[in-house]
Amino acid sequence: METYVLFKDLAIILVSAKLCGLAAAKLKAPQVVGEIIAGVLIGPSILGLVQQTEFISGMAEIGVVLLMFFAGLQTSLRDLMRTGWKALLIACAGVFVPLAGGYLLYCLYYGFAPNGSSQFYSALFTGVIMTATSVSITVASLQELGFLKSETGTTIMSAAIIDDVIGIIVLTFVVGMKDPASDPTAVIASTALFFAAAIVFGWLIYRLFLYLDKRWPHTRRIPILGFVVAFSMAYVAEKYFGIADITGAYVAGIVLCSIKDSDYIARKVDVSSYMLFAPVFFASIGLKTSIDDMTPALLLFCLLFVVVALVTKIIGCGAMSKVLGYSTNDAMKIGVGMMTRGEVALIVAQKGLAVGMIQAKYFTAVILLILVSSVITPILLKILYAKKVGGAQAA
Amino acid sequence: METYVLFKDLAIILVSAKLCGLAAAKLKAPQVVGEIIAGVLIGPSILGLVQQTEFISGMAEIGVVLLMFFAGLQTSLRDLMRTGWKALLIACAGVFVPLAGGYLLYCLYYGFAPNGSSQFYSALFTGVIMTATSVSITVASLQELGFLKSETGTTIMSAAIIDDVIGIIVLTFVVGMKDPASDPTAVIASTALFFAAAIVFGWLIYRLFLYLDKRWPHTRRIPILGFVVAFSMAYVAEKYFGIADITGAYVAGIVLCSIKDSDYIARKVDVSSYMLFAPVFFASIGLKTSIDDMTPALLLFCLLFVVVALVTKIIGCGAMSKVLGYSTNDAMKIGVGMMTRGEVALIVAQKGLAVGMIQAKYFTAVILLILVSSVITPILLKILYAKKVGGAQAA
Repeated sequence: METYVLFKDLAIILVSAKLCGLAAAKLKAPQVVGEIIAGVLIGPSILGLVQQTEFISGMAEIGVVLLMFFAGLQTSLRDLMRTGWKALLIACAGVFVPLAGGYLLYCLYYGFAPNGSSQFYSALFTGVIMTATSVSITVASLQELGFLKSETGTTIMSAAIIDDVIGIIVLTFVVGMKDPASDPTAVIASTALFFAAAIVFGWLIYRLFLYLDKRWPHTRRIPILGFVVAFSMAYVAEKYFGIADITGAYVAGIVLCSIKDSDYIARKVDVSSYMLFAPVFFASIGLKTSIDDMTPALLLFCLLFVVVALVTKIIGCGAMSKVLGYSTNDAMKIGVGMMTRGEVALIVAQKGLAVGMIQAKYFTAVILLILVSSVITPILLKILYAKKVGGAQAA
Repeated sequence: METYVLFKDLAIILVSAKLCGLAAAKLKAPQVVGEIIAGVLIGPSILGLVQQTEFISGMAEIGVVLLMFFAGLQTSLRDLMRTGWKALLIACAGVFVPLAGGYLLYCLYYGFAPNGSSQFYSALFTGVIMTATSVSITVASLQELGFLKSETGTTIMSAAIIDDVIGIIVLTFVVGMKDPASDPTAVIASTALFFAAAIVFGWLIYRLFLYLDKRWPHTRRIPILGFVVAFSMAYVAEKYFGIADITGAYVAGIVLCSIKDSDYIARKVDVSSYMLFAPVFFASIGLKTSIDDMTPALLLFCLLFVVVALVTKIIGCGAMSKVLGYSTNDAMKIGVGMMTRGEVALIVAQKGLAVGMIQAKYFTAVILLILVSSVITPILLKILYAKKVGGAQAA
């Protein structure tokens, strides 16, 4: 019954996120970095003011879903089509280079192991954890910088979508190697089914909104029903197709990105997001970070894990982009934009734990990866994008 | 971990609330009525699509706090001062007439009992449950009709605030009659302390916002810090002073209602509210309604309970308003605006259950009262306000 307690958490999160965000902006770093650091500061490791409750997790999940829905709404379908095949190749390179990198890191650190042994699976799974890009931080940074709709922005978004799908397929294959209950063919089939269903229902939803838009333009029902579409697709994707809810929300945004009121919906999503949900999401990443149970050997492994995960993503995506004809600066932007990891990496790690492929202590490495990538990606992106136009569109 | 499930609930709540809200508007009833009925429809009693989870309760609580904060922001301090002493008298009449009415109803239905017996306390407590007005529904209706800032609107708001305080004092007195642990003097002292603290800290916060407003007008930090003030005061009021969190949020709104950017904050609060939190709040009232374990005798008592609670509030507040010089139409508006009950009545009932003064089965009566008052108040208000200006400002 004591629901009022949640207001303490929300007040602390909002004020610390905003103050740290403004401090970050003063230091010419993106505000999201400050918001994540705020989460670390107020979290259990340092001040212990706020605990990660189920309610905060739920709010954070809504936050990331709204961010992805917003990103989808801001997408240009024409650009997505144009960058589609390039994005596919970039995503493939961005999955397989980190997969190999993670496997090699584990083998070099703990010794090579025969195929099929438990250590072999741990090594392979270390690679699998590194595969899934999570672009929500990149999306927020590009939005703050005003480059979400740029060509590199669209390429990153498309590649991240495809990356998610390939990552899920790889995960299922690897788990399937040990656990006969998991069927990789079924996963590929359900993924294909999801996109087929998204196209069919997406088209129907798009027609419905075209009608609503014409009949009642700029009324509240349009953004509210937009939320309904985003939440429904997030739910259906994860529940019935095993695809991440954030992917479903992004696809919902793409479905609605071509209607006349898409900017109107995006503005309402944006207000709901930055007033409450997005700060909670970013702070909750910091909240999850715990620096207990750490040995020097494990710490060194964690640091190497982070470096390898980041560098292999930049090499994989960046080199492929360069091969596909992007300039060095744009290739770097794409590589850096793709290197962020998020809750998908945690979900993958959890899956590995459940099937006995990795140990719980490696979670620290995953959280460190999420934290480090979340902090340095926005900074690097700001530097890279400033090179070209001097941050003219900065918010 | 399965946080994605909440998106199903949110999608169902939003789409049903919006559709029922639009249907209500088509029938010339306020949209909030439709949204509450949507909650009954999708709730456990009828379709069983959505359960009242802790997460939904939390979202609903944020919803009602945002509604009260918005109402505070829309207040004119000058009007509040002008209507202050009238509001005090109206609130007193609105507490004591229902208190007597509830007591008499119980005695007439179940028989008079000697002072001090268990039945005497049950009768008295039936009256106590009827005292607390909850204006959130009235606020939402007046806002929809465009009369929140009218003189009757301000009178209702001021009277409801004072009503809350008197209600808490009465509750503590009655509980104190049976339980020596509860000290009415301490309650009066802590209530006085809350308002003293609100004036001191409120003035400091007001000065801070005047500065922020001058230095960075129309920036996101202003509404975000406004949220922080609202959430903090909601928390502190309930945690340290035993005052309802919604009263704290309303006072937070009053603190900020005179700064230049108060409308800017109000707009952001409004978007966050109507896009997600308000529909969840209204639907959750409907969700709580369960129509099991009902005997004909209990049902009749529940119906009489509702009628007495509504009529005594109208008589108490309306007659006092008339005495104070309001026109008959305005007196009716005030009486009807004050007759809504909300979560405070439930909290009071819970308190009575905890100290053994009432039985759990009477909860249905309280929920029915909340539901009926929430449904008919907006309709009556719409009719009453239409009489004067023909709903010219209707949203």
